[in-house]
Amino acid sequence: MRIVMIGAGNLATHLSKALQDAGNDVCQIFSRTEKSAMRLAKNLKTVYTTAFDRIVRDADLYIVAVSDDAIAEVISGLPFTESLVVHTAGSIQMNVFAEKMRNYGVIYPLQSFSKDYPVNFSEIPVFLEANTPENLTTLRSAVGQLPAKVYELTSEKRLELHLAAVFGANFVNSLYAVAAQIVQDAGLPFDVLAPLLQKTVDKAVESGHPAQVQTGPAARNNQRVMQKHIEMLHTHPEWRQVYRQLSKCIQKQQNEQMKP
Amino acid sequence: MRIVMIGAGNLATHLSKALQDAGNDVCQIFSRTEKSAMRLAKNLKTVYTTAFDRIVRDADLYIVAVSDDAIAEVISGLPFTESLVVHTAGSIQMNVFAEKMRNYGVIYPLQSFSKDYPVNFSEIPVFLEANTPENLTTLRSAVGQLPAKVYELTSEKRLELHLAAVFGANFVNSLYAVAAQIVQDAGLPFDVLAPLLQKTVDKAVESGHPAQVQTGPAARNNQRVMQKHIEMLHTHPEWRQVYRQLSKCIQKQQNEQMKP
Repeated sequence: MRIVMIGAGNLATHLSKALQDAGNDVCQIFSRTEKSAMRLAKNLKTVYTTAFDRIVRDADLYIVAVSDDAIAEVISGLPFTESLVVHTAGSIQMNVFAEKMRNYGVIYPLQSFSKDYPVNFSEIPVFLEANTPENLTTLRSAVGQLPAKVYELTSEKRLELHLAAVFGANFVNSLYAVAAQIVQDAGLPFDVLAPLLQKTVDKAVESGHPAQVQTGPAARNNQRVMQKHIEMLHTHPEWRQVYRQLSKCIQKQQNEQMKP
Repeated sequence: MRIVMIGAGNLATHLSKALQDAGNDVCQIFSRTEKSAMRLAKNLKTVYTTAFDRIVRDADLYIVAVSDDAIAEVISGLPFTESLVVHTAGSIQMNVFAEKMRNYGVIYPLQSFSKDYPVNFSEIPVFLEANTPENLTTLRSAVGQLPAKVYELTSEKRLELHLAAVFGANFVNSLYAVAAQIVQDAGLPFDVLAPLLQKTVDKAVESGHPAQVQTGPAARNNQRVMQKHIEMLHTHPEWRQVYRQLSKCIQKQQNEQMKP
């Protein structure tokens, strides 16, 4: 399948390499940043352009992998209305294409992509949506050779999935940052916590129901320890509020667990 | 080394097996719950008692591995004052022993122990504290054969470490529970999130500075997405507060990152 990649950031880079490795022809890269476009094109041994009107017209699929805020602008710049075009954003509805395009959809790989961290697509679920069954079939065959698990998902449910990912990844990472600061202030390296953090994710995933494997002072309603912790946080009022809020959340989860 | 294990719960079970495997003689189990005492003693091919006055007097080390709330009572029941005794609690000061005992300390393995999940001590850091250099040497040699990393740590710093563990493990797990609920409500299995959760911990640990690898709507200050998420949480006011609180926390962390 001939694919044009619109964008040359982290996701565009990882996704176009994976699609190429899976046997597709990534025939052109478009980015308004020439340096990024050139780098990715070189990496894939393909060509690039920075001009909307030089985008090739005969590809089977155009993938818009740019930041959420740039999607609408990119769509308005695309020099076609009939070709199949998708975006890759968790929180943008598919119908962002509806006004201009005839054939469109979404390819949403659920992972956090960073430049310096390798991505193994065999471990990433990919969520598809398309405006017609035929277009869905085309998307399925584009990603079909990726070793990923593929699901079909509506825009509404993709938004929910994205919200879950914010809790499970972005917010979790901010708690890691708090924990890192606390251990570093105690003169210890952050990696003393690593086995515990690792075990916590393993247990949650293995159980299938994280609330059932909840431990800690709030789960045991150990007021003495909770009070001591809150006192210790006096120099960080925002961490203190997080402590109170999440302790409340745990106790509510525990109560709901106990219901028949 | 001859060791008596006081307690027969999850931590007592995992720790006494690890100490035995490391070449120590776990010569007796004490628990007031006969069933637990018997089960662990059988498991270790050793003897048990449920009576304080039947605890053997000639061991080199007594390990109190009971729940935080039971520690004081257990100490008052112990039929000796000279032998070396330790507890294993993150949030209890070493001086809980000071009134009655002459020789005491703490062995704190940083991990969350559950009955159904195996424990690999080679991946668990162990933190030691003792009231004299001689007692510290004894504790070092007791845990010396464990493949764990061993650190010396004061009660005060152990409390900070425990607080960090609450953020990095207990609170993280409560966010996993929220994420699990959201994906399940969307009709998806929780394990679609597993690769993302796994990657999040890997990136945080590898970076050494989780705040530096923070991603997501709050980190990008994407108000449109944040507003949409907050609307979606209208049926869960407590999650909504967590969302607001942690978004604020992320933005503060980002600002602090940017300071020179």
